[in-house]
Amino acid sequence: MTDEGVTAEVLILQNLGREQALAEKLEETAVQDIAGAMSQMPAENRLQVLRALPEERRADVFSYLSHGLQREVIDELDADEARRILKALVPDDRTGFLESLAPGDLEGFLKLLEPDDLKQSLKLLGYPEESVGRLMTTRFVSVRPEWTVTRALDHIRHEAHRGETVNFVFVTDQRGKLLDAIRLKDFILARQDVRVESLMDEDVIQIEADADREQAVQTIQHYDISTLPVTDRSGVLLGIVTVDDIMDVAEAESTEDFHKFGGSGRLNVSMREASPVFLYRKRIGWLMILVIVSLFSGLTLSMFEHSMEAMIGLVFFLPMIIAGSGNAGSQSATLMVRALATGDVAASDWLRMWGKELAVAVLLGLTMALMVAAIGLWRGGSEIGYELALVVGLAMFTVVILGGMIGVLLPFLLQRFDMDPATASTPLITSIADVGGILIYFSIASAMFGLPGGD
Amino acid sequence: MTDEGVTAEVLILQNLGREQALAEKLEETAVQDIAGAMSQMPAENRLQVLRALPEERRADVFSYLSHGLQREVIDELDADEARRILKALVPDDRTGFLESLAPGDLEGFLKLLEPDDLKQSLKLLGYPEESVGRLMTTRFVSVRPEWTVTRALDHIRHEAHRGETVNFVFVTDQRGKLLDAIRLKDFILARQDVRVESLMDEDVIQIEADADREQAVQTIQHYDISTLPVTDRSGVLLGIVTVDDIMDVAEAESTEDFHKFGGSGRLNVSMREASPVFLYRKRIGWLMILVIVSLFSGLTLSMFEHSMEAMIGLVFFLPMIIAGSGNAGSQSATLMVRALATGDVAASDWLRMWGKELAVAVLLGLTMALMVAAIGLWRGGSEIGYELALVVGLAMFTVVILGGMIGVLLPFLLQRFDMDPATASTPLITSIADVGGILIYFSIASAMFGLPGGD
Repeated sequence: MTDEGVTAEVLILQNLGREQALAEKLEETAVQDIAGAMSQMPAENRLQVLRALPEERRADVFSYLSHGLQREVIDELDADEARRILKALVPDDRTGFLESLAPGDLEGFLKLLEPDDLKQSLKLLGYPEESVGRLMTTRFVSVRPEWTVTRALDHIRHEAHRGETVNFVFVTDQRGKLLDAIRLKDFILARQDVRVESLMDEDVIQIEADADREQAVQTIQHYDISTLPVTDRSGVLLGIVTVDDIMDVAEAESTEDFHKFGGSGRLNVSMREASPVFLYRKRIGWLMILVIVSLFSGLTLSMFEHSMEAMIGLVFFLPMIIAGSGNAGSQSATLMVRALATGDVAASDWLRMWGKELAVAVLLGLTMALMVAAIGLWRGGSEIGYELALVVGLAMFTVVILGGMIGVLLPFLLQRFDMDPATASTPLITSIADVGGILIYFSIASAMFGLPGGD
Repeated sequence: MTDEGVTAEVLILQNLGREQALAEKLEETAVQDIAGAMSQMPAENRLQVLRALPEERRADVFSYLSHGLQREVIDELDADEARRILKALVPDDRTGFLESLAPGDLEGFLKLLEPDDLKQSLKLLGYPEESVGRLMTTRFVSVRPEWTVTRALDHIRHEAHRGETVNFVFVTDQRGKLLDAIRLKDFILARQDVRVESLMDEDVIQIEADADREQAVQTIQHYDISTLPVTDRSGVLLGIVTVDDIMDVAEAESTEDFHKFGGSGRLNVSMREASPVFLYRKRIGWLMILVIVSLFSGLTLSMFEHSMEAMIGLVFFLPMIIAGSGNAGSQSATLMVRALATGDVAASDWLRMWGKELAVAVLLGLTMALMVAAIGLWRGGSEIGYELALVVGLAMFTVVILGGMIGVLLPFLLQRFDMDPATASTPLITSIADVGGILIYFSIASAMFGLPGGD
């Protein structure tokens, strides 16, 4: 939200009481800011704002509300108002609203649609979840290669008046097969009497409707295009996906990765609107799994109870050693998970990344070992200072390398088994690295000090 | 990288030996894919590919190479070739390349520029790092409000032939002050004899060149626009920022957050190209800071040495208890850091978020407490099972709430002191939560079992 947006919101809120002033204020406010203001106000005022809007802007404002708010608002409208808003929504926004509904509620809303819209919505909802088909709008302009530029421009003008997107104009054959995408600019620059086919370079980036939406993000980002045509398997043009939708998807996918990586389930909902019970359900699963992983740390510690009893001072270094392992692992996992998500690194790069991490981890391990060895010297005093320094230094060196290796390999391993690399969350990496850290530390200490050792 | 891209790369690589075949293959390959292929091949072949390209595509391909590779490639070209590529780059790509250079190297490259380009580059480099000014291109088309649509379209055609971006046309007054942004489509739909001012709605979203680039991302995302005009403080139009640049910035900012959050410094470089020494320097700082935080955990454990000696079985639960605290904290920090980054939650929401987290943490704490209490019952047997279950259950309940609170408040606190909320990394949260977890667990255990207690 920009400052401008916030200011507009404040003004709308202040004018809620005065009908004339409100209508004027709304007229000069962007639809996105009106939607923003609506999400801040009590339910009864939301309806007041929506009704103060001219008919043609209502659906636009509605499309910028969160799905949760859309539902609340539409439930308060009468059936006729709801029908008019649903009719005026562009197809991809309508799909977005409909797919957010519970299956039981969906039916009621489908009944409000006109036959043509209903047919189209059912078709779009028929594409897999998170597919390109769910994102696309069917409002595009297509022309034929044999038309003259004059005829094409007449057609474009006609369609633009109907509100279609015309930055790109698509050329299709009589079966609707996509032949090329031509910029509007090129039609204006061209001589008006030539045929459309003389403008074509037949080099068109396209995507299939069944493809994962993340693939559309990568394609648009890779080729720096603003409009991506969507086809069926035989190449027939079905719709377009625009860069503004793609930016929202890219943000949502990053958020999903971020949440997973921090050890929560995917939320797909605003933190402002999420209920405590919903958040509880999304978090408890991983917390319980991680307790079970920590159980192994506990069992490993128990194995060394006798070593600890014999030399209780060893526990002082335990947090540092296991933190060193877990933190080095978190770092390398972070770098890998993100690099895999952005396409910077491919699954086939695992060996190269592993080698690089080994080099980095050796350097990190050496530095960290020197640091804890110094603490060991101080803590052990003249009596056992050197031995202690050697034990904790050696342990730190080993666990940092271990942590780094786990962190770099686990994301690749997960991807290999078709799981999201972000499942290698820092809490998971830390918990796994803990077990190894405890085992290594006490094994080295038991051996060096001749302690009773593990059971 | 899409499949198509990969295929194109393979074909280029296969044709490297045959000059004619290579030129043909390159002609039908997108510049982004040629750049992708170049990043996979040995240095000597890169030059071969670049020289096989027609003059006008070289700068385009060059602009899609990583900054590291751009430097390598340009160093191998002779001065004249380098000069021609630098001249042909669009202003924002040229700024991107120049700002990636070390200050000592910059001078040499500036000497290769022509006077006009030099002046412009120095001006663009004069904007603060990560500002909108560094991102913008100065290639835009502006018209005057008193012109007729016919005259404006003639002007647009002329500029479009020169390669300028014309999806949006900007209206400025005689001083260059931005008055409005009008879609190309509207010029085509308008009657040709009316004045440009009749198309204006004087409602234009703009941004100042000094603003942070992240603000440009949020503005473009909020208003769903493809081109954002950039002005100076008095409103004079200086350039435009386009959505494809913004997508790259959004991805880079997400990556930066991700890296910080995983406990690494900002990298701003491809993982493929980063050297081990570079990665070491970016990671060692946080690892050392975290060792120091863990030192407090060690000191806390030492305080309870006597309790532990008296009842060594307590250490079995230690990993679970501190993992519970750290993991709950990682989860809530993840949700807050991301919600603050995307603008879902504002700094002023801290109290509401804190209250919500308290409710969630109580539910999580209760569930986790029951889980470890059951393990306590089993582990303690008939002798001390009930007491042990009570101790570990109570400790788990308390530390989960503590962890959740730290995780939700630290990001807000950091932002309050103008630091990046993502600095509240999971390793940091975990390390801080560890100290509290150890203290709470042994305090409860010492009190319940009448152990010697902390020093």
